Amino acid sequence: MLVKEKKVKKDSEIVKIAIAEGDGIGPEIMKATLKVLKAAGARIETESMALGEQVYLAGNSAGIEKNAWEVISRNKVILKAPITTPQGNGYKSLNVTLRKSLGLFANIRPVTALHPYVKTNFPQMDVVIVRENEEDLYAGIEHQQTEDVVQCLKLITRPGCEKIVRYAFEYAKVYGRKKVTCMVKDNIMKLTDGLFHNVFKEISQEYPEIKSESQIIDIGSAKLAANPENYDVIVTTNLYGDIISDIAAEIGGSVGMAGSANIGANVAMFEAIHGSAPDITGQKIANPSGLLNAAIMMLAHIGQSEIADNIKNAWLSTLEAGYHTADIYQKEVSVKKTTTDEFANEIIARLGNKPKKLSVSEMSKGSGTIQIPEYKRKVTKKELVGVDVFLDWQGSDPQWIGGELEKIKTHNLKLKMITNRGVKVFPDGLEETYCTDHWRCRFVALEAKIKRKIPVYQTIEFEHIMALLSNLNQKGFNVIKTENLYEFDGKRGFSLGQGE
Amino acid sequence: MLVKEKKVKKDSEIVKIAIAEGDGIGPEIMKATLKVLKAAGARIETESMALGEQVYLAGNSAGIEKNAWEVISRNKVILKAPITTPQGNGYKSLNVTLRKSLGLFANIRPVTALHPYVKTNFPQMDVVIVRENEEDLYAGIEHQQTEDVVQCLKLITRPGCEKIVRYAFEYAKVYGRKKVTCMVKDNIMKLTDGLFHNVFKEISQEYPEIKSESQIIDIGSAKLAANPENYDVIVTTNLYGDIISDIAAEIGGSVGMAGSANIGANVAMFEAIHGSAPDITGQKIANPSGLLNAAIMMLAHIGQSEIADNIKNAWLSTLEAGYHTADIYQKEVSVKKTTTDEFANEIIARLGNKPKKLSVSEMSKGSGTIQIPEYKRKVTKKELVGVDVFLDWQGSDPQWIGGELEKIKTHNLKLKMITNRGVKVFPDGLEETYCTDHWRCRFVALEAKIKRKIPVYQTIEFEHIMALLSNLNQKGFNVIKTENLYEFDGKRGFSLGQGE
Repeated sequence: MLVKEKKVKKDSEIVKIAIAEGDGIGPEIMKATLKVLKAAGARIETESMALGEQVYLAGNSAGIEKNAWEVISRNKVILKAPITTPQGNGYKSLNVTLRKSLGLFANIRPVTALHPYVKTNFPQMDVVIVRENEEDLYAGIEHQQTEDVVQCLKLITRPGCEKIVRYAFEYAKVYGRKKVTCMVKDNIMKLTDGLFHNVFKEISQEYPEIKSESQIIDIGSAKLAANPENYDVIVTTNLYGDIISDIAAEIGGSVGMAGSANIGANVAMFEAIHGSAPDITGQKIANPSGLLNAAIMMLAHIGQSEIADNIKNAWLSTLEAGYHTADIYQKEVSVKKTTTDEFANEIIARLGNKPKKLSVSEMSKGSGTIQIPEYKRKVTKKELVGVDVFLDWQGSDPQWIGGELEKIKTHNLKLKMITNRGVKVFPDGLEETYCTDHWRCRFVALEAKIKRKIPVYQTIEFEHIMALLSNLNQKGFNVIKTENLYEFDGKRGFSLGQGE
Repeated sequence: MLVKEKKVKKDSEIVKIAIAEGDGIGPEIMKATLKVLKAAGARIETESMALGEQVYLAGNSAGIEKNAWEVISRNKVILKAPITTPQGNGYKSLNVTLRKSLGLFANIRPVTALHPYVKTNFPQMDVVIVRENEEDLYAGIEHQQTEDVVQCLKLITRPGCEKIVRYAFEYAKVYGRKKVTCMVKDNIMKLTDGLFHNVFKEISQEYPEIKSESQIIDIGSAKLAANPENYDVIVTTNLYGDIISDIAAEIGGSVGMAGSANIGANVAMFEAIHGSAPDITGQKIANPSGLLNAAIMMLAHIGQSEIADNIKNAWLSTLEAGYHTADIYQKEVSVKKTTTDEFANEIIARLGNKPKKLSVSEMSKGSGTIQIPEYKRKVTKKELVGVDVFLDWQGSDPQWIGGELEKIKTHNLKLKMITNRGVKVFPDGLEETYCTDHWRCRFVALEAKIKRKIPVYQTIEFEHIMALLSNLNQKGFNVIKTENLYEFDGKRGFSLGQGE
């Protein structure tokens, strides 16, 4: 896989772009953005497609129709204005669908302070959040299986971790960033977040010129909120990234001004981070900066970094000159409250200018191209050593259910422990532990040595699990789910119960 | 269940308290704290117990021995100094074990600005975070079942949601707070976070005098970081609460000064939020404020609110008078850099005083007691309508595996769809979707009407699932886990695949 991000100038190349005008202020800011791009000589050819509110309301619950998928397939690069998801149940998040269906594994959110034109407590802030975009809890796999308990699966994958962590380091290298910070919660989630952190440590070795550091997400979020200027590039999983990229945008003051990129192996999508703002739709006062910044990231991505720099510097110069849309108008620093179109014209008038106070954009001075190798799956020896069987049982005495389960005679399996919400309640639980109707019962091989400080498991066959399930069912236990227990190259691939 | 929080003064009652001196600066700040409590006439009787580093290093991987559990059992209220968890694998988080084993369902973290004695950008900040403390991803149930994919279970329960949401509203009522804000991510996690949000909406109806509002956690975290003075009480799940309580403490400047409470039905634990600070251990310069604030919360909890107010106001007066330990010493506002013991003496000297600039503590002016009723499980009709079977398959073509699974003839079940990391890849997937070795295959009753816009499922028997698993296993498919699909009172208890 080669992520199509080039620094080489190819004058002749016209890049095809799929355009989604969006809803609300979308068409207004798209028009202004494309006007600026055209004036700056962006070598792009656009094709429009319909996404969003009208498609939803026409009865398509995903908000996107087949012909839009075809436009995306033809163009590969998408510039997308904000869309409106209608109120009510059954409408699916179009952004989630696009990100996941198109394999847009990386969400990139730069936040740079624009003080004093946009006020912030942190005028030195200049951080880029690289968020994993496809997996984690956002896989949305949820099951209610007892009256009390609902479950969502958090899925973290090695290919997902490798791609996003490498993207972060490649991004840092190509754009001249100095440090990448990893934020996860692997002190609690040792296998899932532990995998992300381990991959981070592995890949960071290949980039000795870039500083790397790791923080626990709770402390990291707090330190980001208090001292964002201490961060450069941050890489994290989907949910954490969602939270911290909103924090960064909010404290940097840039919610209405920032763009973001969603990068995949073959397709990339660029958009403003703000919404469709139906309250000011049609008034011609919307600030096009968010979408314009997305377009600037897009131009850099498709190898037109010099044009991207030119537009960015003209935009920064316009802010400095005091031509501001209503949302950022301040008496002290503004000279004129502009319409959307006037703002675009002021930017166009400043093409070729560079800002004097704000940092000059120099994306075209970077070197190298972002490259992400294909994931290579390792070959490991995987052995089945047990099963967690989850029961729906409305009783409350772990001793009783533990005793009953110990009595069950099945081919080759014995009960090791029972947990309730992760806490061991059998054997040797505490009476203070509150128990729901959701009991996780761990069975391992009869000959497994489980009394040792570090237990030694033994291989079992899937047929043994089948026999156990059948036996449990016959005895009236309500089996609601199973999780097999595996060792990989002899290493335990499952967590212990709390108190185990 | 009655949470033992009283506002009624009972002069005669001496309350027994289990004391954990902790590690590092723990014993020093505990000594200072108990000295202040004694001087203020706190009606407590203490019993010490050993927890933490020494217990870990003696070979107990949980950091707590049987006699400490007995001390807790006898005393029910715990005042705990910070402990040190030794480096290395295999040591379990003592705090997680205590919280979960003792059913400490609520973590309470007040953050009040102490500006200018402790600097902050938000001098008006006064927020209390009420964090669910037992469940969510912190149940720590993790499984690696394929080479690529590791999974952690997020468990959200109705009793857990009801307890924490009601605690938040009761807390607001008893302590005179005006608003409770719910923060979750139910636009993505509609069943799990949706349950929390629904319970919040239900219970808020019973407290019409308290304002209630809901925010998505990413936006909420961002707004908290930018404008914390807009929040009063925030209630949320375990992971989100972990993140936002650290954000609040950090931007409020109170990490070294704040206490927290962990509340259960029968046991409650009070501690400082900071760590054991081994770097300054033994120098007699540690700031005891964090543990003292925890002790103040403890006194209010056991019905000695007037003594709690007296100590809190003396402490605030000491800060105003400029007697500061080294960590908060500032030339502009401090008059003396005190030792731990001197700081305690200055507080004692000011018992009876009230602060002049900082807000006066008036916990004893609240009314009512915090009461949480027993959870009553509803009776619903639960019907098995299908199963998600997860396969480990290292191929890459969803059409192939989909075709093979459609061919499988089993009693009463048919393939509905396959997802990979939550995205539908069969039937009608997109070729851009990246596939791992982790395939979720949904089977439903043969006669289920799945082509309808809103599918109609049909009841199946557990034996049908057994037959399917057996069949899959015989055909060489590697079944790694199952999740049964249920309807509750006819309502679907499982999420759809993205693109389904």
